[in-house]
Amino acid sequence: MLGEIIQQTRHKRPLVHCITNYVSANDCANLLLGCGASAIMADDPEEVAEVTAMCNGLVLNMGIPNPRKLEALLIAGKEANRLGHPVVLDPVGVGSSAMRQEAARKLLEQVCFAAIRGNATEIATLVRGTAAHRGVDADEQNDATEANARQLARKTGAMVIVTGDTDLVTDGTTLYRVHNGHPMMRTVTGAGCQLSALVGAYITANAAQPMQAALAAVCAMGVCGEIAHRRLTPMDGNASYRNYILNAICNLTPLALEEGANYETDC
Amino acid sequence: MLGEIIQQTRHKRPLVHCITNYVSANDCANLLLGCGASAIMADDPEEVAEVTAMCNGLVLNMGIPNPRKLEALLIAGKEANRLGHPVVLDPVGVGSSAMRQEAARKLLEQVCFAAIRGNATEIATLVRGTAAHRGVDADEQNDATEANARQLARKTGAMVIVTGDTDLVTDGTTLYRVHNGHPMMRTVTGAGCQLSALVGAYITANAAQPMQAALAAVCAMGVCGEIAHRRLTPMDGNASYRNYILNAICNLTPLALEEGANYETDC
Amino acid sequence: MLGEIIQQTRHKRPLVHCITNYVSANDCANLLLGCGASAIMADDPEEVAEVTAMCNGLVLNMGIPNPRKLEALLIAGKEANRLGHPVVLDPVGVGSSAMRQEAARKLLEQVCFAAIRGNATEIATLVRGTAAHRGVDADEQNDATEANARQLARKTGAMVIVTGDTDLVTDGTTLYRVHNGHPMMRTVTGAGCQLSALVGAYITANAAQPMQAALAAVCAMGVCGEIAHRRLTPMDGNASYRNYILNAICNLTPLALEEGANYETDC
Repeated sequence: MLGEIIQQTRHKRPLVHCITNYVSANDCANLLLGCGASAIMADDPEEVAEVTAMCNGLVLNMGIPNPRKLEALLIAGKEANRLGHPVVLDPVGVGSSAMRQEAARKLLEQVCFAAIRGNATEIATLVRGTAAHRGVDADEQNDATEANARQLARKTGAMVIVTGDTDLVTDGTTLYRVHNGHPMMRTVTGAGCQLSALVGAYITANAAQPMQAALAAVCAMGVCGEIAHRRLTPMDGNASYRNYILNAICNLTPLALEEGANYETDC
Repeated sequence: MLGEIIQQTRHKRPLVHCITNYVSANDCANLLLGCGASAIMADDPEEVAEVTAMCNGLVLNMGIPNPRKLEALLIAGKEANRLGHPVVLDPVGVGSSAMRQEAARKLLEQVCFAAIRGNATEIATLVRGTAAHRGVDADEQNDATEANARQLARKTGAMVIVTGDTDLVTDGTTLYRVHNGHPMMRTVTGAGCQLSALVGAYITANAAQPMQAALAAVCAMGVCGEIAHRRLTPMDGNASYRNYILNAICNLTPLALEEGANYETDC
Repeated sequence: MLGEIIQQTRHKRPLVHCITNYVSANDCANLLLGCGASAIMADDPEEVAEVTAMCNGLVLNMGIPNPRKLEALLIAGKEANRLGHPVVLDPVGVGSSAMRQEAARKLLEQVCFAAIRGNATEIATLVRGTAAHRGVDADEQNDATEANARQLARKTGAMVIVTGDTDLVTDGTTLYRVHNGHPMMRTVTGAGCQLSALVGAYITANAAQPMQAALAAVCAMGVCGEIAHRRLTPMDGNASYRNYILNAICNLTPLALEEGANYETDC
């Protein structure tokens, strides 16, 4: 079933408008091409509505924000909603500044999201509406995280994905715990941004199955992190690991995803 | 003859002012260093004229535009013209928005280009002055493309390069069809931007032979795409392919270029 | 002793606010993760003070400047000073424009730096207050360079690092000449930006020993350039070299650094 999600993505070749950040933009674009989608990355308020309209889906990444980019996120998000395109939010480091929190508040108010992906701290910040304590890499995988994820999903109607030691995917009711991935993925910058882009591709090509698409993306990223880790030689480090993960996304078969996916649900 | 173009580039070590975009900037800079040139990437209107003046050539890439960057493209282009430096235009996704079309119109009016490189849709949009249908990866390699390329070359005086299944290089009269490259190059983000940067390096170091320089760049990129593809193992994907192409540019010998170049002309 | 610097960095896992540029941002972020630190890369005046405050150290890279970014550098630098966080300056291409020279002048006036890293031309420009002749890759490793480095260190109180054929590290009195590295590092874009980020990580985690931290960073980068170069196959070029250097930073042991470090001092 998860395998169909990636086949469908390769079949439909969705064009995803990806407003991301300059740290991870190149990796996100290559990941999108690798999974069978493609990307346009316009980020100026003056043109984003037009670009959104020519695409099939939208990913809004809050990393390295500035007022013009934040305005562009809102404009693009509203246009995608108007056209019925799925929209994914990645609230990068949302607790890092008042500007980001305010931007997130407006986005959640004015844009309807198909999926939201963040780490535990970012998701907690979205739920609480107040600041997190430690930047974009923060991770508070405590008992409250599942409750936060479910609460945010119910409030927004979005699939909520929380990445950490265990990844979570929930629509507010059903909650999957995904045990794929490798701790070394934390040493690859923008791995979260990449996953958000992958969610965007899968959910755009499988709009009728947002839950399965989100779950497939989380499992695919994790399985690819495992495949890539097995390739590492003693001289390899995070730079090669980054490349091997992207390579694995490129080569991932439906069978490898289904055999490798390691998740459970209790409802 | 094409081999001399790359030897001359390594000999002259041109400094190229490259106003590009944040998706492909790192790859373009490494490609320029790899081919024997080097890059400065200033993009602010306040300083671009000065930076242009200290360089030998200029590449204007319209990807991820904003009003300040578009202003910078114009300022830099005019300064390069004033100084007699070759200027290359890459009209990335020019059909994607009114802002890009308007910017392209102004650039073509106010700046004299040595070369223009785009895909078939981008070149068609420049010729027609109206929008293309499908983003930056679009490709309409129909019979009209050669006519469009010739028309744009005649109108602008630039070498026009159209990349697609077959690449075209024309000065408006002579037209080369280049059959190098590999379809997997489409999965490497910014491959077009990289080629435009390479055109900038070659044409800057070989200003008296713009046609040969443009042809050499197109063949070199394609030959390197072929060399890189032969290195791929079953576990490799577009991330390794990206690296292998850049590696190949770095190691490309005049002999390998001349033996590998596969082009024809009918006039 | 140098080995302790990198151990301490891995132990403390400093969070470094890195205002850099879009050419080298991804590489800098991966390098920081590889050496045991991590990065946030906010660059907007509206939020940089908050982001600086949640980090432990700050790197200010002047590459690809614009007025908003330059304002952000000042705000972040002053906030880091207020909080007692170490601040590193990388005056990328400072001689390239009046805007950069003016920005550097303000930064040196208003911000107290723990370290400044540039090539010989950039350091000379900071000392003279007037323009250099050849862009960011420039290199005037003449007799005046050591005097410039010492003078800038005395004037600013910062450790001054000059990279070139021989790298220099000085506090204004003691001066180390580092003979590590490989000429091919010049073909990797942003190698200097990466070193500045590494200085930021080491100096943040070892604030009581800024001289040793700066020396360790310069030696580490050079030793990694040597390790990476030994891995290169005949088909590899600057793209693989870039990855291998980052890999080597990731795997560098205290012992390998101490055995590989090749420096001398005459006072």
